[in-house]
This record gives sequence, C-alpha cells and structure tokens, in this order.
Amino acid sequence: MENFEFFNPTKLIFGRDTIGRIGGEILEGGHKKVLLMAGRGSIKRNGVYDQVTGSLKDSGIEWVEAWDIRPNPVLSKVREMIEVAEASGVDALLAVGGGSVIDSGKAVAAGLYMDDVWQAFEAKQPILKAMPVYTVLTISATATEMNPYAVITNEAEKKKWVVHGPALFPKASVVDPSVQVTLPWHQTVNGALDALSHIMEQYFRGRGSETTLAFDEAIFRSIVENTDKLQSSPDDYDSRASLAWGATLAHNGTSGAGLGGGDWASHGIEHAISALNPEVAHGAGLGVVFPAWIEYCKEADPRIFKRWARNTWDARSVDRAIAAMKAKIRSWGVATTLAGIGVDGSQIPEIAANAVEFGPIGVIKKLTEDDIINILRLASS
Amino acid sequence: MENFEFFNPTKLIFGRDTIGRIGGEILEGGHKKVLLMAGRGSIKRNGVYDQVTGSLKDSGIEWVEAWDIRPNPVLSKVREMIEVAEASGVDALLAVGGGSVIDSGKAVAAGLYMDDVWQAFEAKQPILKAMPVYTVLTISATATEMNPYAVITNEAEKKKWVVHGPALFPKASVVDPSVQVTLPWHQTVNGALDALSHIMEQYFRGRGSETTLAFDEAIFRSIVENTDKLQSSPDDYDSRASLAWGATLAHNGTSGAGLGGGDWASHGIEHAISALNPEVAHGAGLGVVFPAWIEYCKEADPRIFKRWARNTWDARSVDRAIAAMKAKIRSWGVATTLAGIGVDGSQIPEIAANAVEFGPIGVIKKLTEDDIINILRLASS
Repeated sequence: MENFEFFNPTKLIFGRDTIGRIGGEILEGGHKKVLLMAGRGSIKRNGVYDQVTGSLKDSGIEWVEAWDIRPNPVLSKVREMIEVAEASGVDALLAVGGGSVIDSGKAVAAGLYMDDVWQAFEAKQPILKAMPVYTVLTISATATEMNPYAVITNEAEKKKWVVHGPALFPKASVVDPSVQVTLPWHQTVNGALDALSHIMEQYFRGRGSETTLAFDEAIFRSIVENTDKLQSSPDDYDSRASLAWGATLAHNGTSGAGLGGGDWASHGIEHAISALNPEVAHGAGLGVVFPAWIEYCKEADPRIFKRWARNTWDARSVDRAIAAMKAKIRSWGVATTLAGIGVDGSQIPEIAANAVEFGPIGVIKKLTEDDIINILRLASS
Repeated sequence: MENFEFFNPTKLIFGRDTIGRIGGEILEGGHKKVLLMAGRGSIKRNGVYDQVTGSLKDSGIEWVEAWDIRPNPVLSKVREMIEVAEASGVDALLAVGGGSVIDSGKAVAAGLYMDDVWQAFEAKQPILKAMPVYTVLTISATATEMNPYAVITNEAEKKKWVVHGPALFPKASVVDPSVQVTLPWHQTVNGALDALSHIMEQYFRGRGSETTLAFDEAIFRSIVENTDKLQSSPDDYDSRASLAWGATLAHNGTSGAGLGGGDWASHGIEHAISALNPEVAHGAGLGVVFPAWIEYCKEADPRIFKRWARNTWDARSVDRAIAAMKAKIRSWGVATTLAGIGVDGSQIPEIAANAVEFGPIGVIKKLTEDDIINILRLASS
C-alpha cells in the first residue's frame, strides 16, 4: 500500500429535508452576506431555491444572486462572478446546483484573492486563500461537494483544466437526495458514470491495498445496482441516497486511499473532448472513453484489470467485463461511441493533441498523442 | 437510508516512515510545548519514542513526558495527567500509543477546561473546548485516532463509559503500520475484533443504505482476510496496512453513514465486563459477547442478519455464520466464552446490572437486565 494522507474537513449534511440547515451553517461560520450562485433556473422549478432562500432569511443572512452557470463551466463566467462578489461585499459563497455551479463557486472563492485565477489552473500560482464556500448539491456526480477540486474551461484557449487546494474544501455541503428525483434520466446516468470513473481512475492503481480495493468494488457495484433501480423507479429515495453517497465517496479521498494518487488519463482525455465540444456532458464522455482506455491498457497490469472484471462485473475476463460495462451503459440509454455523443472522428487528432499539451498522460500506461489517437479510435466503434 | 452528518476534520497521515512528520504538524498548529503521553514503555522498545522525540526536536517543540497509561485506562490517571499538563504549561497534547493512551489524551484535553471531567462522561456537562490532541498510533483497533470518542473507566465507581464531542477529534494522527509488526499476536487480534465489532454495531441497523452496507461488508471481509494473513506472516506490511486502514474506517464515521447511529449494545455489555474485570482486553471481550448477541437478537431483523451471514461469511444461515465467526476467532487463538477470558459465570448478574444502569440498552432489540443475563449465558458455552 502506498502512503497517503486523508484530510477532509467538509461538513456533509446528508438526507431528506436538510436544505433548511444551510442558513444555520453559514451563520455559525460567522458570515452575514453570501453570493448565491446557481445555474439556469432548475432550482426554481424543483423547490430548492425556495428552501435555500427561506433558510437564509431564517438565519438573517443577506444574499446577492448570480445565475446562469452552464455545464462545462467557463472561465469568463467565473471572472464575471468574481466582480459581482467583490462589488456586492459578500463574505461567503453559496453554490446551489451541480458540479458546474460548485466548481465555479470554488474558482470564484480562490479568484477573489488572486490577480488572475487562471494562473492557479496553469499551476503557476498556488491557492493560498479562498473565500469560504457552502454548497447545496442538486446532482450527485463529481463529489465536488466534499473535495478540494474544481474543473473550469478556459473557452478562449480550449483548456478544460483542474485546480485544487485545501482552501477549496467546502465548509459545509447539504445533499438532499430527494431533490434529485426530478432530474432528467440522462443527468442521473451521467452522474453515475462520472462517479464510476472516479473509482476506476484510482482502483486500477491498486497494489497491496486490499481494504481500499474491496471498498472501491463495493461502492462501484452499489452505484451500478442503484442506477439500475432508478431507471425503473426514479423516485425511489433509498436508491437516490445510495447513489448520492456512493458518488461522494467515489472522490472524497476514501476511494483512493493508499492507491498512489490514481491514474486520471481517462479524465484527461474526456476533458480534451469536452473542452472542444462543450455540449458533451462529462459523464457521457467518460462512458465512451473509459471502456476504450481499459481495452487499450489492460495488458499494462493484467492482475488488477482481471480482479476488476471478476469483482465488479462477475466476468471471467477483462474483455467480457468491458462488454458488460458497455452493455450496461447502453442499457442506461447512453452511447458508447464518440459518434454517439456527437463527436466526429475527424476531431480525434485535435483531441489527442489537446490532451497531451504538457506531455504524455497517465500512470498505469504512459499515453502519448499516438496512444490517445488509438484509444479514441477504439472509442469510435 | 437515515439522514446523517459526516464531519471529520482529523488529518490522517498514513504509511511507512511517517512518524517523523508529527513535529511539523504540531509546529504548523502553532504549538510550542506538548505533553507526551504514553503507556508502559513499548514505544521505547520498538523505536517509536525515538522517532517521535527526534521529530519534536527537529521542529523545535518542547515536551514533558507522562507515562504509564494502562489498557482500560482509568479516571484517576486522567486526573493525574490533567495536573501535570496544567503544571507544565503545555499548549497541546501528544498521545503516542494505542486506544488507551489516545483516549486518555482526549479526556485530559477536555478535562483541562472543566472542573471535573467525569461530568462529561456522566453527560451532565458538554465538552465545549479541548486542548488540541495529536496522536501517533501504535495499535490499530478503536479508530480513536480519527474520531471524537474516548472511553475511560471510573475505577472507583466501576463505570467504563464513553464521551464524545467535536472538540475531541485529533488535529493530526500518524499511523505507521510498520511499527505494528512487533505487536504480540493477541493484540493484533484484539484490535481486529474491536474493528469488526465497530462495523457490526452499525451494520445491523442497515435499512435502505446499500452503499454503506456494501462498504461495511467489504471492510469486514478485508479485516478478516488480512488478520488471517498476519497470523502466518506478522511482518507483511500490506496486510498490516490494510488492517490498520480498515480499523480506522470501521469507526471514523464512514461505516455508519446512513445507518441511524448504530446499536452498540455489545459494546455496552463488554464495557460492563471490563469495568468489573480490568484485565480483560476490550477486543477479547467483544469476541465473546458479539456472537452471543447475534444469536440472541437474530430474529429481531432476520433480513439484515441473513444478509450479513451471506455477504461476510458466505453462510447460508445466521447460525452457520455465527459458527464460522466463532471458529475464526478460535483459530486466531482467542476464546469465545466468558470463562475463556477469565470471567466467572457468577459475575453475570453484576455485569448485567452494570450494563443497564441507565435502563435497557440497544436498538435492534431493547435489552433489559434479564436479556443481558441470557446473552451472557449464551456466551458461557
């Protein structure tokens, strides 16, 4: 087992009817006025907005609203919101939405103390300080509600990059799975695919970490099983809750403990795809890339891929497990080819070049531009 | 799934050769002088003491030493150490040892700000403040290195009770599994039994929490498997590390997420046993009590006990699983009867009375004094 640190100071408040607690948490944090950041209005339709603002009122917290954060959130929007936050004199941020909204919240939080927040994404400047971020999660996928990561797309430069730092852990996050009952099915699935990918990015680095590997297999199976259940019973609370908690655990530090930091090549490739195709949902992109990546890399460490095949798909070989995974993804109504998610094969060289801007990616197998072209070709059929 | 909060701000530093980092952590916390609390000297024999004090020296941290904390740590010792801490003007505590030493550290930390720390155990006064506690763990068992609990025995009143509060989370804990290679076998096993019990106390409350149940089964199996491996290969690092991380996860908030707080009746009964028999190790006591408790309570919720039988012991019935668990415990060289751990049957009424001092205990099945007598009789054969 590799050495690791586990540090995660986020307070997670999980369950039915918990959104009303957010105001109290912000008050306890000593804050008076927040920037309420949100997406394109779904929280007004599903009642979350009313619960959040009601809670703020009850706790005497003032707020300013900043809307219209889109999926694959962009740097220009982050910069715009930094200005709003500065102008309105808030002392904390409240991100209400999915990964895009929360990641934007984190970027704003750091950007408030930097000349140019993109410097942190370029790894030219560390994040030393950030305004406290509180979150109310409306779609379980990225685990950003309980981790120190944020992914933002610099749309001018077509870079979808990640930033991290302990200051970016949310102070408190509320996850009420019952509000996810109204999600469109494809969003539920994309969330599940993102969570499964987070587990796999770490799992395949597994050597001598029996406890973590067993844990990862368990939440992997639970996510698959509960996504299945939600396909037929979208309003089943326990399945929503198990999927939601599985997604948080998939990337809050637990699933990678002792696994040496994971691989993350599939994420790198997917980020290149959606940097060039902002309409591609992250989870959907991962559903296409990951099976192809496994197919391409399976000989690099046969032991761990065979274990995964056996313990997560009850499959006798890695090939059978890949087939089972693709069949499962298709049964969820999601494409498993680039064309199926609207990406033309002619883009493959550009995607590959984008992914290796800083050189080869991946750990289990170092992937050059040519390797990534090969993987994307596998993902084309 | 039940609502839950997950909040655990302890920084866990896990792995080989990590003890040397403790001084830096204490320095980063802004402290100048610590009370180094320890047991009866094993840390001088296994090199841990030298690593710890070397690290303190390197970081310019002064220290005062307080030794001789025993298993089943007692209130009189805690009170003595509170006086030492006050007299020596330390600004943090450094507990170096197993659960007894760390729990004593937490009790001292809280007691420094109370007229009488036992008031907190009696639940007559909450813990509002505590001196920061740092730990270096030398035996994996209780997960106290990453939770807000402490168990202390008031030897005058024969009460082995627990206290908790967010202020009791250690600031930072170092777990170097390699130092556990020198543990006597029975201590390794008692640690494993304690960890398995922590999982079971929570697991059997499982309803609608698939992710947590699957997770619990996975770490349960991993702990059993790695304890088996350590029996034949005590110096296998990966097995030590998997057992150690499993023990931490078994009681750091993760294993009980969504399970409504667990049951804890077996712990209550064991605490009564070792309050009256301080020579009984907690893990050994649990190894006797838990199979009997399952036997007695299995009809209260057949679904969850059957699931446990199938998913942790590959057993077709609960009775077969109980038999498998007892056989496993015996194969580890540990007794599964009260007599085997040196407790005479004549003590049963007194133990039962001690356990229900505040009324019936347990949730899955409320246990009266008579119920506990019946369980202890089952534990006699």
